[in-house]
Amino acid sequence: MNRLDLWKRYKKYVCRVPSIGLTLDVSRMHFDETLFESMSVPLARAIEAMAELEAGAIANPDENRMVGHYWLRAPQLAPSEETRTKITDTIAAVKNFATSVHTEDIEPQRGGGFYVVLVIGIGGSALGSQFVGDALGTVEDPMIVRFLDNTDPDGIDRALGELDETLEQTLTVVVSKSGSTKETRNVMLEVKHAYEQAGLDFGKHAVAVTAEGSDLHALATKDKWLRTFAMWDFVGGRTSVTSAAGLLPAALQGIDIDDFLAGAQACDQATRHQDVLQNPAALLALMWYDVGRGRGERNMVILPYRDRLALLGRYAQQLVMESLGKQEDRSGRVVHQGLTVFGNKGSTDQHVYLQQLLDGPDDFFVTLINTRFDREDHSLFVEDDVTTEDYLHAFFLGTRDALEQKGRQSITITLDKVTPHAVGALIALFERAVGLYAELINVNAYHQPAVKSGKSAASDILDLQRLILKHLRDNLRQVFHADELAAAIHLSDDVERVQHLLDHLSTSRPDTVERIETPSGTHLTYRHR
Amino acid sequence: MNRLDLWKRYKKYVCRVPSIGLTLDVSRMHFDETLFESMSVPLARAIEAMAELEAGAIANPDENRMVGHYWLRAPQLAPSEETRTKITDTIAAVKNFATSVHTEDIEPQRGGGFYVVLVIGIGGSALGSQFVGDALGTVEDPMIVRFLDNTDPDGIDRALGELDETLEQTLTVVVSKSGSTKETRNVMLEVKHAYEQAGLDFGKHAVAVTAEGSDLHALATKDKWLRTFAMWDFVGGRTSVTSAAGLLPAALQGIDIDDFLAGAQACDQATRHQDVLQNPAALLALMWYDVGRGRGERNMVILPYRDRLALLGRYAQQLVMESLGKQEDRSGRVVHQGLTVFGNKGSTDQHVYLQQLLDGPDDFFVTLINTRFDREDHSLFVEDDVTTEDYLHAFFLGTRDALEQKGRQSITITLDKVTPHAVGALIALFERAVGLYAELINVNAYHQPAVKSGKSAASDILDLQRLILKHLRDNLRQVFHADELAAAIHLSDDVERVQHLLDHLSTSRPDTVERIETPSGTHLTYRHR
Repeated sequence: MNRLDLWKRYKKYVCRVPSIGLTLDVSRMHFDETLFESMSVPLARAIEAMAELEAGAIANPDENRMVGHYWLRAPQLAPSEETRTKITDTIAAVKNFATSVHTEDIEPQRGGGFYVVLVIGIGGSALGSQFVGDALGTVEDPMIVRFLDNTDPDGIDRALGELDETLEQTLTVVVSKSGSTKETRNVMLEVKHAYEQAGLDFGKHAVAVTAEGSDLHALATKDKWLRTFAMWDFVGGRTSVTSAAGLLPAALQGIDIDDFLAGAQACDQATRHQDVLQNPAALLALMWYDVGRGRGERNMVILPYRDRLALLGRYAQQLVMESLGKQEDRSGRVVHQGLTVFGNKGSTDQHVYLQQLLDGPDDFFVTLINTRFDREDHSLFVEDDVTTEDYLHAFFLGTRDALEQKGRQSITITLDKVTPHAVGALIALFERAVGLYAELINVNAYHQPAVKSGKSAASDILDLQRLILKHLRDNLRQVFHADELAAAIHLSDDVERVQHLLDHLSTSRPDTVERIETPSGTHLTYRHR
Repeated sequence: MNRLDLWKRYKKYVCRVPSIGLTLDVSRMHFDETLFESMSVPLARAIEAMAELEAGAIANPDENRMVGHYWLRAPQLAPSEETRTKITDTIAAVKNFATSVHTEDIEPQRGGGFYVVLVIGIGGSALGSQFVGDALGTVEDPMIVRFLDNTDPDGIDRALGELDETLEQTLTVVVSKSGSTKETRNVMLEVKHAYEQAGLDFGKHAVAVTAEGSDLHALATKDKWLRTFAMWDFVGGRTSVTSAAGLLPAALQGIDIDDFLAGAQACDQATRHQDVLQNPAALLALMWYDVGRGRGERNMVILPYRDRLALLGRYAQQLVMESLGKQEDRSGRVVHQGLTVFGNKGSTDQHVYLQQLLDGPDDFFVTLINTRFDREDHSLFVEDDVTTEDYLHAFFLGTRDALEQKGRQSITITLDKVTPHAVGALIALFERAVGLYAELINVNAYHQPAVKSGKSAASDILDLQRLILKHLRDNLRQVFHADELAAAIHLSDDVERVQHLLDHLSTSRPDTVERIETPSGTHLTYRHR
């Protein structure tokens, strides 16, 4: 297509939403002009389904749950007074708590104010606040926010080592809706141990964000933690960033959470529009559908041209892949749906994979994020008439052009400013696009049945490990080859896992399980010391 | 396959390399047993081609370059005495310089020692040292290393704001082989400006890593920077981590670079093996070839179960995608080759995309990285007989099992320890696997022709922006619509880019270019103030 035709296509399809300061440009996608008509009925149905969901329909039938993350930023929409009150009370509690921490009305055990927040959470309990915190952080923030999101003792050691003496000024926020996520529980125990080693009462430095009645809730109550903030079953982890899970770390960091919620609300409003061309979420969902032929046949590469948006790719990766990656559709048909997402930031990533995008297989589409930057005095002239910011913009626009010339497809989202309002809107945009797309392909976007099988596989491994340890302990100093041990515990078929576990135990607990090598190293045996 | 058959397959194909403490397990890949025979000739040819390359063949013919990153860790293999001397002298210079900085024999302008390293580089000049620094960092490191890898003035502001008063104790390392990478040049100018604003002479805090004769080299000489370390045309950016580009930041951070180089060398040695089953790089390349049918038909998901290896995915993403993403093969045939890579770390990423991997499209294979951890006292018991480390291991092994049960393929790489030696070896393993795979699919892994078109597109944009600014300046206070301005500069076809640039200029330089909106906001005009 020549430049003038592209300009016409741009003007015809550009979706400008002043209420959220966002522009969506799909002119570089290769859809056919008839697409809007052919998809008008399914799209209208999808928009209708979202309206039902917002009105409190059971959108997640196998967990018998409503899906209410939209109410979190517009409590008046919630289906009951009770829910409305829960939401508004929690927002107020988050703000009050953050203010009290900032004013030092709430103090750590040894006084002097909290100035570090350590968030312990994983997946949906971390990615949202990581993205928001990084997108909106400034050097003037009242508190520094750090995350621990894995059951890796080495990673925990390192993070705690970096905190070191500031631990006594550190407020730990433990986020887990179910309150029983193992990684989070484990990190919490390690961190608790570190406070105790420093002679500190963990409860005087800890806050929980969890559902009422959870294990975490019980522990926080028993150990008199500073506060517990509520999560509810109508909010899923990957859409929990506008609940206390995201709001509390943001408020502590000094982010204006009212503006953030207002942005999400304004985007929700804009994306209820019936006219697809004026509804950026519907337009996005339609593009995803068309480009991947409703089967996710192309990878989505997310490329924001702004350092502070570098975590958008990981945030969207979870939101999209966990919501859409499903074996069965809602009628039980095996469909193996999904939509792969990756990306970091531009122009940096141009030096990572632009070579393949331009020359390699045409198996993707790019979502470019362009952000306007309005601080003239902050941008240095690096050449005649050209600033660092001009370069960033030129790399964005140049990459869009280069992709087009190579016949590769791209979407561009432009944000007028990177404010709490805009970040709230951007998140709500992706949330709703995912919801609409899920309607188009008829999958339940709100459950994650397979994650359980990963978890139960891990739990099987730990049971097997316990069996092995018990047998070694019951037969102190007796030497076993993996085959022998597997037979002894009546799991001969499971010799490979027994071997891996013996290897793991003898490395990670050398004082307990001894590994004995033959000189050739080929025949390994193990025993309890 | 039942567990016993899997165990047999495991034992048959496991590739254990004691010299680098690495085990490669391909038993969960669905290759046919005949693969090794059917691919034996092409693989032998590929191993031969790598030998020729190591002996100094012109492996990158369109740039007429030898490819010598292997010599960097085994200078005795370099094809000339001159090259050998260059390499050994540079390693010695890096070590001497780092020692002098640590002992404060080399001091910043105002004294007191350097304790922060700010590395300015992008792509191959940053990803390697980012990965190595994060993989091997400890809280006892003598210097903290930070990176600036983008021409984003906002990102630069934030990073400099975080350095703040430590700027005068900060050693800036500018890495650019060509010495003319725009992003790096821009960041360098912004950082130089910040030193000058603080009343500091930039040159007394700066070091360059660049090729002799480059623009950067000339600048460093003219402004009397502390040192310049050499890069050479036989080292490509994405394989430069064992050159001064990677060694200098690592040595400053306190990493044992001799051990790191020894690990890479030992892996090079091990991966020259003719027997594929004993050559982990050949085995990896063969698996990539088979699983993606020589066309990169499946995404490679990299999942290291260790926080400190989280950047391996991004490092490998560049190494693999930039090397293999090629439009033409070496005979000029249009092939659009590539191999998509993404991933972060486990078990964290299990909460991101495991749902899709297990239930979604079978369009990927996973590379699990398992690392042994031998510090018993550092791992807390979180349940009866179970530590945090046991959980991490169980999540790794459980995910491998869950993938297998869903018919999804995975490779497992186990590292005995995460040491400089092991990280050097892991890098060398991926480098050689990429080289061998490139031979199998007959592409030049050592050039990146398309990146140029991205760069020249950006440079076209900047030229157009200069034209626009000149025209506005020549017609001060005169009002233009984008159409009118495009016509005035005889680029009527280019009205879209003119519009985007006017929008960009009026936002990023509001004091220079004024944007005038009609009340409806639909008709925008611009003028120079």
